[in-house]
Amino acid sequence: MKSTSLKISKVPDEGYNMDIFIDRKDTEYIYRQIYKHYKSLILNRKIKTGEKLPSKRKLAQDLDISINSVSNAYEQLLAEGYIYTKERKGYYVENLEKFINDNVADENQFPDYLKEKKPYKNNWLSLSHINTDPSLFPFDKWMKYQQKAIIEFKHNLAKIPHYKGAYVVRRTIAEMVAKTRGVICEPEQIIIGTGTQSLIQKLISTQPKNIKVAIEDPGYVRMFALLKKLNVNILPISLDSKGIDFKKIKAADPDFTILTPSHQFPTGIIMPISRRIEILNWISTRENQYIIEDDYDSEFKYGTDNIPSLQGLDKSNSIIYCGSFSKTLLPSFRISYMILPPKLLELYQSNYNDWNENNSLNLYALHYFIKNGDYTKHIKKLNQHYSKKREILITELQNRFKNNIQINDIPAGLHIVVSIFTKKTYNQILVDANKRKLEIYTIERFILSEQKEQKNNHEVKLVIGFASIDIKDIKKAVNELYTIIY
Amino acid sequence: MKSTSLKISKVPDEGYNMDIFIDRKDTEYIYRQIYKHYKSLILNRKIKTGEKLPSKRKLAQDLDISINSVSNAYEQLLAEGYIYTKERKGYYVENLEKFINDNVADENQFPDYLKEKKPYKNNWLSLSHINTDPSLFPFDKWMKYQQKAIIEFKHNLAKIPHYKGAYVVRRTIAEMVAKTRGVICEPEQIIIGTGTQSLIQKLISTQPKNIKVAIEDPGYVRMFALLKKLNVNILPISLDSKGIDFKKIKAADPDFTILTPSHQFPTGIIMPISRRIEILNWISTRENQYIIEDDYDSEFKYGTDNIPSLQGLDKSNSIIYCGSFSKTLLPSFRISYMILPPKLLELYQSNYNDWNENNSLNLYALHYFIKNGDYTKHIKKLNQHYSKKREILITELQNRFKNNIQINDIPAGLHIVVSIFTKKTYNQILVDANKRKLEIYTIERFILSEQKEQKNNHEVKLVIGFASIDIKDIKKAVNELYTIIY
Repeated sequence: MKSTSLKISKVPDEGYNMDIFIDRKDTEYIYRQIYKHYKSLILNRKIKTGEKLPSKRKLAQDLDISINSVSNAYEQLLAEGYIYTKERKGYYVENLEKFINDNVADENQFPDYLKEKKPYKNNWLSLSHINTDPSLFPFDKWMKYQQKAIIEFKHNLAKIPHYKGAYVVRRTIAEMVAKTRGVICEPEQIIIGTGTQSLIQKLISTQPKNIKVAIEDPGYVRMFALLKKLNVNILPISLDSKGIDFKKIKAADPDFTILTPSHQFPTGIIMPISRRIEILNWISTRENQYIIEDDYDSEFKYGTDNIPSLQGLDKSNSIIYCGSFSKTLLPSFRISYMILPPKLLELYQSNYNDWNENNSLNLYALHYFIKNGDYTKHIKKLNQHYSKKREILITELQNRFKNNIQINDIPAGLHIVVSIFTKKTYNQILVDANKRKLEIYTIERFILSEQKEQKNNHEVKLVIGFASIDIKDIKKAVNELYTIIY
Repeated sequence: MKSTSLKISKVPDEGYNMDIFIDRKDTEYIYRQIYKHYKSLILNRKIKTGEKLPSKRKLAQDLDISINSVSNAYEQLLAEGYIYTKERKGYYVENLEKFINDNVADENQFPDYLKEKKPYKNNWLSLSHINTDPSLFPFDKWMKYQQKAIIEFKHNLAKIPHYKGAYVVRRTIAEMVAKTRGVICEPEQIIIGTGTQSLIQKLISTQPKNIKVAIEDPGYVRMFALLKKLNVNILPISLDSKGIDFKKIKAADPDFTILTPSHQFPTGIIMPISRRIEILNWISTRENQYIIEDDYDSEFKYGTDNIPSLQGLDKSNSIIYCGSFSKTLLPSFRISYMILPPKLLELYQSNYNDWNENNSLNLYALHYFIKNGDYTKHIKKLNQHYSKKREILITELQNRFKNNIQINDIPAGLHIVVSIFTKKTYNQILVDANKRKLEIYTIERFILSEQKEQKNNHEVKLVIGFASIDIKDIKKAVNELYTIIY
């Protein structure tokens, strides 16, 4: 068939003079062409309100197309409200207000400064404490367990998930943390979420405004940023050799205190039992005040067993335990959990029982992964791997920096803190690291109090992660670091 | 080896009189038994602060165990801070405050009323609009694309994901919504999140307190619940035949207006172009005021094409477009997105650039699923399937209820609204439905204004979903409904 161009003549009740061009070679359906043609005529007020469109039969004849094409076009115009129909009479143009925007030039270009830059830090060497090593993750097992979940829990996958995460998954986590961390809880107390931050954010949002929240300083800078956005009074509390300064906590008397007792971030201090007892004795006497125990990397201990959690020692229902699979599995899986004492649980439930952020397939896979012993095996493998990396890193640092470095050798976690003798400032180091494409974090980044301490002029402290770097690149990275610092 | 029970005699510098029992048949490692023994003695103050522990060699000899076992036990006690060491002298008991909790009986049983009930509504017939049908979902394809993602994006899976979701996924979504919904945007403007609610919650949280937020009434009751928790003035706005009442919107002059123009929830009204123009003309003259277009089920249209989005018609950067994969894929995947105008994007970025809630593996699978045409195919298949179910449902309702039912036959979405002549109240219907295990929602649930309208005494309106019910069960469900209503 050839394409048809038609000047529709104006005849009573049969529409207007107007050019319509059907391109049969166009990939667009004919009905869409007719639809667009009339839509444009109507929006541009080339056909007036109340005017009748040509009958389907007439237009089909004139254009040499099927009535079906015209019918589909008219149905779409009708559904969108460009035309209305009078039974057995035909289709008429709707009464539309003049569309202001139609005459506005599209000057609202997307601004350049909001454009995203190329992937950040590609091909850099990384001594970051943030990312992990995907090479050891048993993706095959994970996929196998997803398959199993698709078979066993198919019906549940079609539902909006439980707001705390599926019960069976929480039960598995409860059993696991009882064994590995001494945490005592019911599956009901566990809230699974996409990150410790988002869980704590929701918890805090159930509290009255302007509550006092204490946080370790130096500490977790992202948590600090989060708290700044909430309506709370943030109290950064300094550390002594045993972790957070207990006298200062007692004096500040915060409603919530966020701690990392298993491995203080970033200093690495493992809070000794003496400080734990002080804190637990104190909190057990405080009504409606809580400790948030952020157990972000407790699974990594080289040479000793895990340190039992604070939560397991507490009998006053004052500890909120937070765990995460970001470092033991993958950070991109976004699986964390928070274990609430009954009082806070009740409050959480009444506020967030229609909130759903967990991918069920992911959680069911986790369930099987733990149940079948793969999680324990994987952590053991990771510990061996990271222990080796850690030793190599420490050896390389000592060989290269010799007497100019002091390594705070706490055999835990995925990073170490070192003091290096140098006259360079933190800023100079970061500028030079940037030039040489080495990702490295200084302790300065984690100092939360407004007035950052004056740097000792002959020393810098660095937080050096070893999780993401390849073993073969460690020596190179240490050499780069040396070049940057001297 | 036999088990060893030993009375350690007190000798100078060699520790205390105390019973220690090593059970070699125990599954617990010997070093853990020694560790636990001393931990308990120290916590219970059976050994005093500053006392020396037996030397490793002496204890190993006395118990007939390896020095290694003693060494491991002492290392763990040291790591947890129960003991300290003086170089070349030995191990000494730390100075611990008396632990109050240690004498507290564990009376804090988990309260019964917080226990979770058995899975809700198992084996019910469901005419709910909420859940979907998993039977058609191509899990095999999804798994294949996850596998592909593991190979292609492995390195990214070990990183904390981009706070908006990976760029490549957003680019794919941008291309798709341009084609299917006429939405015009850059990938930078897309924020991927775990639900429309959580995205809107974050967006609103970047706004000043007490802003006015208008919402359709009847409308999305979960959104209403969410807004109530935020510090906003909620304005429920009633509907007329074209959707939200424009005069009321104009009079209320809200900062944000949440609309479902493609298929009003729950009434099903498709907002005609005349109302769209009114709203767009109005919003284009308002500074810092926005429309949130919630396109929750626009993919389902029976008989017509998709209705183009409001966002695509807008040239004043006043529309926030929200889309979701909950109904087209699975609600348990938790993938939604929000497309922000530049001004709001900037605000969002400065508030949430360290927020991460997306499972990357899931998003990369989505990327391939769309890119390879599977998404379009799947929606087509769903439309055919749901269209069939919908027809059967309508036929069965008409056959059973005859002149007692009026069906608001808008060929779109995954639910219909019907009016049924009956003297039963909404409450009576829900009580009886509960008894007969039929999941059904009445319009009353979605009426948001404080003073619920008086029910017309001879009529009830029901929101009947057809996504989750099996075709073979439709007749049975309709019969149940009839029995419940009469």
